[in-house]
Amino acid sequence: MKVTVLSGGVGGARFTRGLLALLRDRLPDGVGGTTASVTVVANTGDDMWLHGVRVCPDLDTLMYTLGGAVHEEQGWGRRDESRRVSDDLQAYGLGWEWFTLGDLDLATHLARTELLRRGLPLSEVTARLASRWGLGVRLLPATDSEVETHVLVDGGSIHFEEWWVRHRAALPARGFEQVGLVGSVAAPGVVEALQDADVVVLPPSNPVVSVGTILAIPGVGEALRATTAPVVGVSPVIGGAPVRGMADACLTAIGVETDAAAVARHYGRRVDGGVLDAWLVDTADRAAADALRDDGWTVRAVPTLMTDVATTAQIAADALTLVDRLP
Amino acid sequence: MKVTVLSGGVGGARFTRGLLALLRDRLPDGVGGTTASVTVVANTGDDMWLHGVRVCPDLDTLMYTLGGAVHEEQGWGRRDESRRVSDDLQAYGLGWEWFTLGDLDLATHLARTELLRRGLPLSEVTARLASRWGLGVRLLPATDSEVETHVLVDGGSIHFEEWWVRHRAALPARGFEQVGLVGSVAAPGVVEALQDADVVVLPPSNPVVSVGTILAIPGVGEALRATTAPVVGVSPVIGGAPVRGMADACLTAIGVETDAAAVARHYGRRVDGGVLDAWLVDTADRAAADALRDDGWTVRAVPTLMTDVATTAQIAADALTLVDRLP
Repeated sequence: MKVTVLSGGVGGARFTRGLLALLRDRLPDGVGGTTASVTVVANTGDDMWLHGVRVCPDLDTLMYTLGGAVHEEQGWGRRDESRRVSDDLQAYGLGWEWFTLGDLDLATHLARTELLRRGLPLSEVTARLASRWGLGVRLLPATDSEVETHVLVDGGSIHFEEWWVRHRAALPARGFEQVGLVGSVAAPGVVEALQDADVVVLPPSNPVVSVGTILAIPGVGEALRATTAPVVGVSPVIGGAPVRGMADACLTAIGVETDAAAVARHYGRRVDGGVLDAWLVDTADRAAADALRDDGWTVRAVPTLMTDVATTAQIAADALTLVDRLP
Repeated sequence: MKVTVLSGGVGGARFTRGLLALLRDRLPDGVGGTTASVTVVANTGDDMWLHGVRVCPDLDTLMYTLGGAVHEEQGWGRRDESRRVSDDLQAYGLGWEWFTLGDLDLATHLARTELLRRGLPLSEVTARLASRWGLGVRLLPATDSEVETHVLVDGGSIHFEEWWVRHRAALPARGFEQVGLVGSVAAPGVVEALQDADVVVLPPSNPVVSVGTILAIPGVGEALRATTAPVVGVSPVIGGAPVRGMADACLTAIGVETDAAAVARHYGRRVDGGVLDAWLVDTADRAAADALRDDGWTVRAVPTLMTDVATTAQIAADALTLVDRLP
């Protein structure tokens, strides 16, 4: 069974970890893995050059989470992290005080940068870095091109990470732009992973700047709309608020209500030219589920808080069940 | 009084520290500095790109030594150093086991790389980094161009640092080449620092790959030969062996004997088209001094082991005295 996940950072990484636990339980291959094949297509719109090294926040969060190295409470970054380099960098008056650059995390950035400078595309670099961790999934960047999300704010535009981390998404945003989008192409394997999938999952990632950015890469949205596999999404909004992060600010910026039903309608049903076949919401959003169902959506309300791996595995099971793909 | 020093790494840095102590003692300005103005022109031939960041070994050693941050016993690198990043980098199969990339040192490389990527020339980057440390000298790279020393060995050529650090200079070298030399120019201020000096000092740095590389930059050797200031050198060879490092391997590669007199003759007297007016050797090399004196050299034998700052200050005093420039 082939599963393809379009993921941002923490939410998508945690969901994928639960999905893997489910698949290992139901389709074990006897050596701790799974006979299912999971491809994770990661958002690269948050990527940036920082002090000359290439930082890929979502790829890193996925790698650390699935590789068992993540700072669990924080959700991103490495556990047992330190900041010797960044503290000293600030003594030069150069560090970004608002951006954590951990020593262990920096090793990943340096390794990535060296391989990029050797001329390898990001997808190959990612495969090489991931091989250290034994992720149990194939991890693909959405694109090998440098397509960075910038946020339109008063007076100009700033890199997404500056808006998100420095300003905590509190600076009013009037929209987003993917700098470098024109001429970019999906990374090798991305379109195929959508075409050949048995099921595609949109995990509870940011629908605007994570999943939305992946879908904006030329060819990706089209492949998702065209795949024969069912596409099921899990709402990142519970009870009118994002579970984590500040997705509400992103939704507001593009005129979408922070509501489980509004996010579904933003994605749209594939029969209507959108990208979803089914939508899983939290039990707190039964009203949203009912409204969507009245409009013909395949929708279900279940507990969707990813409190631990077992609970998340059940959410993944509910999502696959909704499109009849539970193995 | 203006003093210009053409320096490699450890030897030149320690000599300059002693020189500064001497000048502060003899020409104090009352606030811990000196009314003398010292310019250090640093070799940049050892520089390299490593994991996407720019490493400048000699500039760093000078900066840390004069800034009071050097690992004293080691002679290079930062004290209280750690290797969290490089250990983790090696877990990706990417670190160079033979090259120490300390966490604090890495902060310098990252700061430098960020400023270079902003488009600043190395000389401006160096001034900005140096401003953190309060060196008491003006620190200039020999050139803003990327001119890297490669070593000609059996089967091809390798970066100087690979030959020096990884192979401990034990791989037979047939010569050196400065890759990028054609078209390079001296960094702003270098030629002027030689033209306007009251005295120029060649500290006990490697005459081949440190001072030799500085002099190879178009315009630098010419400026040294033409300056009205006296030029005095301190022999890096004592008793037929380099005091530190493996300068003997470099000298052998270019057919020069590892001998205090042979090094002087390699540099040559300015009256004969060379770069030196006077040469300070160790008391162990009285015979070399006598031979040079017989040939008309201005030469003196004194203790030249830089065992501590006070001793080194005396060596600097002896060097300046030899050309009648002791303030």
